Amino acid sequence: MSFKDASRILLNEDQMPKQWLNIVADMPEKLDPYINPATKKPATKEDFYPIFAKDLVDQEFSQEPFIDIPEEILDIYKMYRPSPLIRAKNLEKALGTPAKIYFKHEGLNTSGSHKLNSAVPQVYYNKMQGIKNLTTETGAGQWGTALAVAAAFYDMPLSVYMVKISAEQKPYRKAIMETFGAKVIKSPSDTTKAGRKILSEDPECPGSLGCAISEAVEVALNTPDTRYVLGSVLNQVVLHQSIIGLEAKKQMEIAGLYPDIVIGCAGGGSNLGGIMSAFMKDKLNKKANPYFIAAEPSACPSLTRGKYAYDFCDMSNITPLAKMYTLGSTFLPSAIHSGGLRYHGMSPILSKLYHDGYLDEARALSQRSVFEAAQLFAKHETILPAPESAHAIKTAIDEALKCKESGEAKVILFNLTGHGNFDMGAYMKYIENNIVDYSPSDEELQKGFDLLPDIS
Amino acid sequence: MSFKDASRILLNEDQMPKQWLNIVADMPEKLDPYINPATKKPATKEDFYPIFAKDLVDQEFSQEPFIDIPEEILDIYKMYRPSPLIRAKNLEKALGTPAKIYFKHEGLNTSGSHKLNSAVPQVYYNKMQGIKNLTTETGAGQWGTALAVAAAFYDMPLSVYMVKISAEQKPYRKAIMETFGAKVIKSPSDTTKAGRKILSEDPECPGSLGCAISEAVEVALNTPDTRYVLGSVLNQVVLHQSIIGLEAKKQMEIAGLYPDIVIGCAGGGSNLGGIMSAFMKDKLNKKANPYFIAAEPSACPSLTRGKYAYDFCDMSNITPLAKMYTLGSTFLPSAIHSGGLRYHGMSPILSKLYHDGYLDEARALSQRSVFEAAQLFAKHETILPAPESAHAIKTAIDEALKCKESGEAKVILFNLTGHGNFDMGAYMKYIENNIVDYSPSDEELQKGFDLLPDIS
Repeated sequence: MSFKDASRILLNEDQMPKQWLNIVADMPEKLDPYINPATKKPATKEDFYPIFAKDLVDQEFSQEPFIDIPEEILDIYKMYRPSPLIRAKNLEKALGTPAKIYFKHEGLNTSGSHKLNSAVPQVYYNKMQGIKNLTTETGAGQWGTALAVAAAFYDMPLSVYMVKISAEQKPYRKAIMETFGAKVIKSPSDTTKAGRKILSEDPECPGSLGCAISEAVEVALNTPDTRYVLGSVLNQVVLHQSIIGLEAKKQMEIAGLYPDIVIGCAGGGSNLGGIMSAFMKDKLNKKANPYFIAAEPSACPSLTRGKYAYDFCDMSNITPLAKMYTLGSTFLPSAIHSGGLRYHGMSPILSKLYHDGYLDEARALSQRSVFEAAQLFAKHETILPAPESAHAIKTAIDEALKCKESGEAKVILFNLTGHGNFDMGAYMKYIENNIVDYSPSDEELQKGFDLLPDIS
Repeated sequence: MSFKDASRILLNEDQMPKQWLNIVADMPEKLDPYINPATKKPATKEDFYPIFAKDLVDQEFSQEPFIDIPEEILDIYKMYRPSPLIRAKNLEKALGTPAKIYFKHEGLNTSGSHKLNSAVPQVYYNKMQGIKNLTTETGAGQWGTALAVAAAFYDMPLSVYMVKISAEQKPYRKAIMETFGAKVIKSPSDTTKAGRKILSEDPECPGSLGCAISEAVEVALNTPDTRYVLGSVLNQVVLHQSIIGLEAKKQMEIAGLYPDIVIGCAGGGSNLGGIMSAFMKDKLNKKANPYFIAAEPSACPSLTRGKYAYDFCDMSNITPLAKMYTLGSTFLPSAIHSGGLRYHGMSPILSKLYHDGYLDEARALSQRSVFEAAQLFAKHETILPAPESAHAIKTAIDEALKCKESGEAKVILFNLTGHGNFDMGAYMKYIENNIVDYSPSDEELQKGFDLLPDIS
């Protein structure tokens, strides 16, 4: 058949990439190094070994352009990958746009999102090293669920520190992690020093990713044979998620197309980092010039209003410092429903690409506009998206409507990373007109900036 | 590539069937006719027109072996079909079985199940006829969700009578239907004569599909330009679901295989009716001899312990009578978590095939054993199934273990129709060891049989 008109472009498993793409290798300027918070000097691999599995640390520092995906990981990927590239024909028709809107659908696995792409290798490498326990944090619950799925497969005990407000908004996320055998602890908790400190200052604290990371890292550092794993921000995560963009590029080629615009929502960067991979490589090598847009919530505007500076990845300042766009590790975003986009910082890779002008644009969106876009998309494409992914949908719709104005038939590609099945509480609030929009004031942001560590 | 070893066998949209398969045409003995409850004579198409859209009634009575799928319906199917045929390699390995276990994964759409395959044509034909409102019932919520998705797409107002116990066990099912714009009413309700009668007798009645059907049909009959739609039992539904088996057969051919055993869970019959379609046609035409197994809950054992007799499809005896395996329209099953398998009767097509020996076996399963199978499957295949589908999984595992004993490398195919994302309440109970198993006593069943209508 001609794929020019296909609704879904599928790849068979032998067309699945056998290597991850490490975009770091193609960046014209090197990433600023992580900094050891104790010595204030560039962190070494050895500084990371107590926190992360060795192979993962090596990936974190790797300058290789491609890294082989082990056969054992491919075997698990094959249970749910390659994911389809879908053309949103009915949405296009409803919008009356000449644009072609494609999306990569990463929500077609039980974990409900792309997070499984990194959860599988992270558990695998820890298992290979003989690690006996893993700790992690989760915001929206997508990462925690993905990790619970991967940990169950490998018989790896797992403790998940779940941001309290998310655990309360999404009780069934907790339940699904427990069904897969994980232990779920609401964060802040009294199980760690970091948690107890935060609770003593604010017993009603709704939690944040930064806080949950502090707790999970503290436990990993203080428990034998235990390591920490993280679902976003890190270079290794952007590496693992590159499989999304690698597949998407193959699928676009099958359709005889190349995207003019590539869109991902941006919390810690795993989503946009994933979909952009192969296309960003082309841009850095001047082979193509797609326009990249990061869509973030105006409630947590790390790219649009943050500072590009060294900051801690957690709230209790025990992790290495990363150079990134940040709102300050003390920033506590409001309790918006896109729990996966509430992190104070942004992946160092994406931050650098944004700072250097390769990631073209960041756009901050109101919650209400995002849910409106989600509902419109659901009506015409029969898919209920996660609120996080709906940031990308809103942006894609806006770009498609610009094309309607200009008459341009641009090719728009976005990453639909998750389904909204565990977000029904949020959708109910939207239907009942109870979504409250919030943007932090300049004064509020300044408080976070004032507390940034001084690294010169 | 060789698909012999593939984990997932995919079809492109041009390989999607363009016709539904009407198994009725191949049955050696004709189906017993529906009976008009007023005249006690065979019901005519005209008897059905006030309830269902005309084209759907024509399909209900059709003897054609194949019926074209309209282009407009194919366009919606293409948004989520063809569905993958997946080999459960990791489950096979965990079981240590020489059997090959394949499953058709129908849970990869927002409605979460195969029900969308019939919801789309049912809304479409009503829309074409100029119908202005639809009513339906839902048990587990899968049918209601699917219909809400299809109704949203076609801008068709929809009222869903949802079995009360299901609405309470699954609040997010109600929420998702409302997000797609449907009106959800807990059944029994005070909005209908049927509902009020049941509530006056038992204000705490947990509801049943039979009761919800009564309410939805009553509203359709008494409201202008309104029709009723039903997600199972009917011949038209088995017809629409035939696309599952048609695809599965093509995919099996690509793998160079033919199933020895075909398994589906059985509530009203849409699930097993769907997966068996093309294989049952082969069996009826003596081209192959696959072994068919219906898996039902021991709490609602219509095939294993029911009577093959004429009965009402609803509780207030207003619908035409159907010849089927039934526990009696007054039978109220216990509040098991497989809400989709709580119907008192069974599709007339499946009933006849079972009675005549073509559907080889029915098996009644305890809830606990079903959840155990679901958890084992989830661990090894990373997919959390709906409890209904887990009946088929349990049966597939049992058959695979028999192969382990005998050393036979049988090819087992089952229908995984739904994901369990909206069943987390049930999984929580399972984890907490709070699943109560229940089988009705012979005396209890006899009460239902005593009230069967006398049609001779």
